[in-house]
Amino acid sequence: MTMTSPTNQTMKTLEGGLQIVPGLQFAAVASGVKEPGSLDLGVIVADGLRNIAGVFTKNQAAAAPVQICREKLMNGHQCQSIVVNSGNANALTGDAGMDHGITVVERAEALFGGPAFPLSTGVIGVPLPIQKVLDGLQGCKEKLSRNAKPFSQAILTTDSKTKESGRWVPLDDHGHGFFVGGVAKGSGMIHPNMATMLAVLATDAPLPAIVLERMLKRVTNKTFNRISVDGDTSTNDSVLALADIPKDGEQLSLPQLAIIEAAFQRVAGDLAEQIIEDGEGATRILELRVHGARWLSDAKAVAQSISRSPLVKTALHGADLNWGRFISAACNAKVPINLNSLVLKVGGVSVFSGGSPRPDDARAQAAFEGDRVFVELDLGSGGEEVTVLTTDLSKDYVAINAHYRS
Amino acid sequence: MTMTSPTNQTMKTLEGGLQIVPGLQFAAVASGVKEPGSLDLGVIVADGLRNIAGVFTKNQAAAAPVQICREKLMNGHQCQSIVVNSGNANALTGDAGMDHGITVVERAEALFGGPAFPLSTGVIGVPLPIQKVLDGLQGCKEKLSRNAKPFSQAILTTDSKTKESGRWVPLDDHGHGFFVGGVAKGSGMIHPNMATMLAVLATDAPLPAIVLERMLKRVTNKTFNRISVDGDTSTNDSVLALADIPKDGEQLSLPQLAIIEAAFQRVAGDLAEQIIEDGEGATRILELRVHGARWLSDAKAVAQSISRSPLVKTALHGADLNWGRFISAACNAKVPINLNSLVLKVGGVSVFSGGSPRPDDARAQAAFEGDRVFVELDLGSGGEEVTVLTTDLSKDYVAINAHYRS
Repeated sequence: MTMTSPTNQTMKTLEGGLQIVPGLQFAAVASGVKEPGSLDLGVIVADGLRNIAGVFTKNQAAAAPVQICREKLMNGHQCQSIVVNSGNANALTGDAGMDHGITVVERAEALFGGPAFPLSTGVIGVPLPIQKVLDGLQGCKEKLSRNAKPFSQAILTTDSKTKESGRWVPLDDHGHGFFVGGVAKGSGMIHPNMATMLAVLATDAPLPAIVLERMLKRVTNKTFNRISVDGDTSTNDSVLALADIPKDGEQLSLPQLAIIEAAFQRVAGDLAEQIIEDGEGATRILELRVHGARWLSDAKAVAQSISRSPLVKTALHGADLNWGRFISAACNAKVPINLNSLVLKVGGVSVFSGGSPRPDDARAQAAFEGDRVFVELDLGSGGEEVTVLTTDLSKDYVAINAHYRS
Repeated sequence: MTMTSPTNQTMKTLEGGLQIVPGLQFAAVASGVKEPGSLDLGVIVADGLRNIAGVFTKNQAAAAPVQICREKLMNGHQCQSIVVNSGNANALTGDAGMDHGITVVERAEALFGGPAFPLSTGVIGVPLPIQKVLDGLQGCKEKLSRNAKPFSQAILTTDSKTKESGRWVPLDDHGHGFFVGGVAKGSGMIHPNMATMLAVLATDAPLPAIVLERMLKRVTNKTFNRISVDGDTSTNDSVLALADIPKDGEQLSLPQLAIIEAAFQRVAGDLAEQIIEDGEGATRILELRVHGARWLSDAKAVAQSISRSPLVKTALHGADLNWGRFISAACNAKVPINLNSLVLKVGGVSVFSGGSPRPDDARAQAAFEGDRVFVELDLGSGGEEVTVLTTDLSKDYVAINAHYRS
């Protein structure tokens, strides 16, 4: 994404994630929800109130913490702490689960002051071991520091590594600027609408809550909602964003807001890439661009049909350029398609156009053997497009998910 | 399905498939489309004209033989031969593919007389080796016999066994009756709307073409369209049905038609079961009943969301009763769901109701470890229901599909 900076300075990538943002502290403990000794509970505590916005799963079986966050955001937009537990999603746990979630929030608010927001990830349908979480929160209070690394670890489930990203955004030519950082977890069940992923983004830029919310929705739609591992959407997906509360009369210009949004998009985009690269059992990544669509919704429907097809994903796994599976999956989307207008390219090389296969081209097969495979499908019907990232379907995916609870 | 017989006799299951139907001959050869020596081309030839009906894939990238069958059925409803080749789907092959398909039909009509209908299955996007098929048709003519076994083998692809079923339908108490038989192939890409499956059904009962077509549509919706292996729908799925042409004034009674339709449904149901049992890499079968739906379309949408979820299918593979994945998948369907009204039963044992998990019950876990797992989801919203069959997702599925072309 290109955007004119309001200054001659350019955005800079920084090491670290949330901890680059001033005024935030972190802690994590092994509360015993996971196996003993494994970090599974973390907190982010701000040095005062922050504005907050959130986007959540569209799954109708939203977990208790998602329901609690939504309700809190209906009634306010300020936050001082975020509590994340892994190992147990507190989902499909009924009234007891809601009670547990509210108890966690109340304890965090008593310990850290100001409103607390909960996030959970892990196995669904199992009651949260509430006493362990409450004890763990006490432990977190004693460990608060500027080091976010343990927190980044505590929120992981089947992830193989932590996921962080940060940017510095210049405001003028005199070294002033803002920080934008983020952290995420997620490797399975990643799909448009954010299945089983959690992310927290934060900036020290002063943003009214409504501005923050609009930014977050646009950014999420262009990043987290465009990655897919297995097409399932979970009960717990959440992205929260924090920003400083503007002081009286404090207001950013439109160009300043634009560059801050661009930084959010870069950070969220980095995290989405890290999630997809860490996809369960993933050995290859497919970057799929569907363009030439009459409507954006058509492009999205075709991209989704291709990116969730097990036949496409196993062909990708085997580096077998069985391109007919891409066309077949596209033509299964409930979108009118003119086969004679389609052009399918693999690594920039046309393999199907005018309703017929192109002659075999070794460059297409070579491109399909790469770690990251670029496929473009031109629908030939208009000017809308979408790009999504997905992974292959491997035996390891099956192994990871066949015995998730043991 | 229960149905009052028009006689005191009851329907009988017979050994064999199509060959129980009088007046049909069969042949198969190794034409060389598959590896040398492997049966890959088969014909069914009737001793005179038959009425014919067909239902086909809803994939927009319908293969050339599907397009040819559809066009022939728009212009007539009589048939004398059916030609099936495996190893090459003649799909996504452009104008050349249509030319090849028409050439095959013309040759079959020259050899066997009367209208010929083509079916193909195999790899997509590769030109049909037309001369091998034409030579093979000549070979078939010399081999015609009443033995349908080689034909049943010649239509297979990744199938591990042939699929046949037959019934005898009594017409009166004096031993008169009709035969209904069928043959099918299919093991991967099986999904509502008949992905990569072919079937031919036949009866010697005299049925007007319009009656045969309506029967076939109802029967297909209750059998082949209710099984799912991997959620993809292919370019080639087809079911054809043959029946004798009624002589002047010959007409069956409504009860007689009903029992013939019941026989078609039993035969198609048997074949659907055989397809799902032979699902690629399948080690377990899920029989999923979604009931209590306000609309049939709701029940189908929920059943589809569950039966194509990789998380449900891997949990099934691991015999890990992670029932939350069933609820989560149901709640991803675009159907309004009241979580508090849901009741999920595994092997008849309730595991979730009233918005909360039921206490662990060893009988549910035991049921989930069986070769065939029965799961019922009551949506608590009405009286509509659907039952679908699907398979687990195994490492073998990945292995089969990662290198399908090699």
